[in-house]
Amino acid sequence: MSGTMHIAKLLAAAAALIAAGATAAGAEEATAFEPDRARTAVLITDPQNDFMSEQGAAWGLVKDNVLRLNTRENIAALIKTAKAEQMPVFVSPHYYYEPDADWRARGPIQKTLHDIGMFKVDGATSFKGFAGSGADFYAPLKKSILDGATVVTSPHKIYGPESNDLALQLRKRGIDTVILGGFAANLCTDSHMRELMEQGFNVIVVKDAVGAPGEAAYDAAMLNYSMIANDVWSTTQAVDFIR
Amino acid sequence: MSGTMHIAKLLAAAAALIAAGATAAGAEEATAFEPDRARTAVLITDPQNDFMSEQGAAWGLVKDNVLRLNTRENIAALIKTAKAEQMPVFVSPHYYYEPDADWRARGPIQKTLHDIGMFKVDGATSFKGFAGSGADFYAPLKKSILDGATVVTSPHKIYGPESNDLALQLRKRGIDTVILGGFAANLCTDSHMRELMEQGFNVIVVKDAVGAPGEAAYDAAMLNYSMIANDVWSTTQAVDFIR
Amino acid sequence: MSGTMHIAKLLAAAAALIAAGATAAGAEEATAFEPDRARTAVLITDPQNDFMSEQGAAWGLVKDNVLRLNTRENIAALIKTAKAEQMPVFVSPHYYYEPDADWRARGPIQKTLHDIGMFKVDGATSFKGFAGSGADFYAPLKKSILDGATVVTSPHKIYGPESNDLALQLRKRGIDTVILGGFAANLCTDSHMRELMEQGFNVIVVKDAVGAPGEAAYDAAMLNYSMIANDVWSTTQAVDFIR
Amino acid sequence: MSGTMHIAKLLAAAAALIAAGATAAGAEEATAFEPDRARTAVLITDPQNDFMSEQGAAWGLVKDNVLRLNTRENIAALIKTAKAEQMPVFVSPHYYYEPDADWRARGPIQKTLHDIGMFKVDGATSFKGFAGSGADFYAPLKKSILDGATVVTSPHKIYGPESNDLALQLRKRGIDTVILGGFAANLCTDSHMRELMEQGFNVIVVKDAVGAPGEAAYDAAMLNYSMIANDVWSTTQAVDFIR
Repeated sequence: MSGTMHIAKLLAAAAALIAAGATAAGAEEATAFEPDRARTAVLITDPQNDFMSEQGAAWGLVKDNVLRLNTRENIAALIKTAKAEQMPVFVSPHYYYEPDADWRARGPIQKTLHDIGMFKVDGATSFKGFAGSGADFYAPLKKSILDGATVVTSPHKIYGPESNDLALQLRKRGIDTVILGGFAANLCTDSHMRELMEQGFNVIVVKDAVGAPGEAAYDAAMLNYSMIANDVWSTTQAVDFIR
Repeated sequence: MSGTMHIAKLLAAAAALIAAGATAAGAEEATAFEPDRARTAVLITDPQNDFMSEQGAAWGLVKDNVLRLNTRENIAALIKTAKAEQMPVFVSPHYYYEPDADWRARGPIQKTLHDIGMFKVDGATSFKGFAGSGADFYAPLKKSILDGATVVTSPHKIYGPESNDLALQLRKRGIDTVILGGFAANLCTDSHMRELMEQGFNVIVVKDAVGAPGEAAYDAAMLNYSMIANDVWSTTQAVDFIR
Repeated sequence: MSGTMHIAKLLAAAAALIAAGATAAGAEEATAFEPDRARTAVLITDPQNDFMSEQGAAWGLVKDNVLRLNTRENIAALIKTAKAEQMPVFVSPHYYYEPDADWRARGPIQKTLHDIGMFKVDGATSFKGFAGSGADFYAPLKKSILDGATVVTSPHKIYGPESNDLALQLRKRGIDTVILGGFAANLCTDSHMRELMEQGFNVIVVKDAVGAPGEAAYDAAMLNYSMIANDVWSTTQAVDFIR
Repeated sequence: MSGTMHIAKLLAAAAALIAAGATAAGAEEATAFEPDRARTAVLITDPQNDFMSEQGAAWGLVKDNVLRLNTRENIAALIKTAKAEQMPVFVSPHYYYEPDADWRARGPIQKTLHDIGMFKVDGATSFKGFAGSGADFYAPLKKSILDGATVVTSPHKIYGPESNDLALQLRKRGIDTVILGGFAANLCTDSHMRELMEQGFNVIVVKDAVGAPGEAAYDAAMLNYSMIANDVWSTTQAVDFIR
């Protein structure tokens, strides 16, 4: 059993971490994680109209946080810099197909997504009506995402990548570290961070390249990122690293 | 693309959910999830001395939250009631063995756990010195946990059950819903909730049978539970359901 | 340590099992697994032109086995009977998209699939040219597979369903047992059987509703099914059960 | 749709592969997979008395194959060489604890394992009576396995590593390729190969460092290894590579 010194040490570490979570700043100094650039990729969750377009079904929900952080510009900067430097870019989208309407026992946000028809795609082998829909990629990013080099994974279906091919696609290219941004900060982005850590990847979350449904959700995400991820960076830090 | 009515509906739902997260109360009314009692089990993450004993390495970190919520008494009540009613009980513990010292690139909390020797067990096939150690089960729960009926899974190694046999053990007994409590609220408990949802389980989190490293971490956990889990109950509600 | 009696018992059991593998018959009597019909679904792996159509890229490889077993008619019978009885039908297809050309270190059959352009689909969000291609569903099955009720999962990418949403889709409909057929018997079908068993599902493989690349591969599959699956049935047995 | 030339090419490739499976020889020439030595480890499944000791519960089942191949000496050579060269060694054992007796709907071999008490360990946190039992490591290997450097993972529970921490432990040490041997060739060894491939690892199976329950099971394993694994080596080839 650890003694008083250990408790003191832990408390100090935890206090720093919680402070980091609250301010979304301290975590940068607390660690010295150095990714191997040749094994690093950019990963964006849900860069789709329903979150990013002003006509998107969930825009109203995330817009205050997105406009405050400049999330859309920051995600665009991450992708643009990665493309310029030949760093691989991965996108993990969120779709629901017609038969998904049969699911039992959805959780509350899953129920909301279903009720408002968010991320709806015609069928697993038919993307009829996809162009410009809420499920389509945000227009300013679309050309980069569909350039034939970006890996667009199969859809995640709840919040994490457990049911898609993200981990495999990263591994088949020798990637062990992701620079992560996207939507929603405390839901799909957090779940991607957690699952990738469980699979032995390193994860750096970009704190101003995410979007949350409200500031309380953003704070919750920041607190969890600061405790779990290998590091939490700003877009500026990430762009500097990628270059 | 969804119209204004959809946005309004989503915003209202989200507002309710976020409020629920803040107050840890509203979520009870928002949903009507009815578990099938015959397919439900109690699951406790990390009911170990390092979190629950006053000599535990992380007691100082969680004690304020634990004492405010009566977490220890509430976890004991969940297990005791389940045992009395022959509802299966599962425990997902957290251990580190000697070779785990070689891990690369730990995240911040993983690093802290390593630095202070938390959850340390002699070896994968040797529990020498386990009795009474920080990794051992909290004494008041130990007899129930080691009664030969409780399923003690293999250890989880990061925060979630991805690397242990929890999902399989639940399935091999026909369980599809868990009533979840334990430590730490926003780390292992949240990660267990998320992974079990990804595997198609239903999850009810017991809001006063968890323990968090500080109230900000507790609030983050409550917000995420309220958005993701099928429901959030009090211990009183859970005990009433189990009986 | 177990004694001589145990060895004798095991040897007898193993001998029966191996015989079952060789004859693909004995396994039916050896077990008494009784699926719960309300929790059972039909699952077909890779019912796509590249395996099933006489113009398919791999038809030459599987045709002798397929014609001997009447695999195509048997798969059609399983789907037709399930549809008539409202038993859910799941299809786990195999696709490769353009960026998959970048994969490192493929195994031998993966390399062959890549070299001959098998299962090629334009892009993850574009099924341009899909109709009638080698990746498309075998024409006589296509209407049933695309009826809006059949669950067409995301593609598997190696051989098993680890990287797609099959397990989740089954669970979200309360399915715990699958009646399994498809292609290729010892590769994707075997890997689906193994992964579903690891996830706590029950699996019944239909021995004449699979297709193998040669009789040696078929025998290997039968031997492994007989040892691992909950049971091995004929199409006649499966149809009788579904009805 | 691929034309006649493609079919011919595929058939030739498949014929070579199937021949390789039958002879367990050709696969060595068919591929040119070159592992990165610094990212390679040795992995042994189930090196336990119940398979390897002449008093083991399943010795009678595998002994003919094991004695023909010199499996025990070959596994010992792999481990010894790896230790001498500081290449990491991983062991994935198979245990059943008391509560596992409650499992529903076992497959045939799982039922046999249960009936004869194979791989039985007192409890998840109690290895009382482990020393010398059928679940313990084979005596000539035991010192190396318990040297504090070998990673002994949590037990696998069906056949594959889906329910243990093998993938995570490999990743946390930067390993992307395993040199694989162990028991039983077509069951746990094959399932480990398949799951690791799905997780993006490279796998080389050592054809004379495995043990099968009969020659038909061995042939089935060889056929599947030759089609799925990155390569199939002899112990001599593996030892030369490790050195």
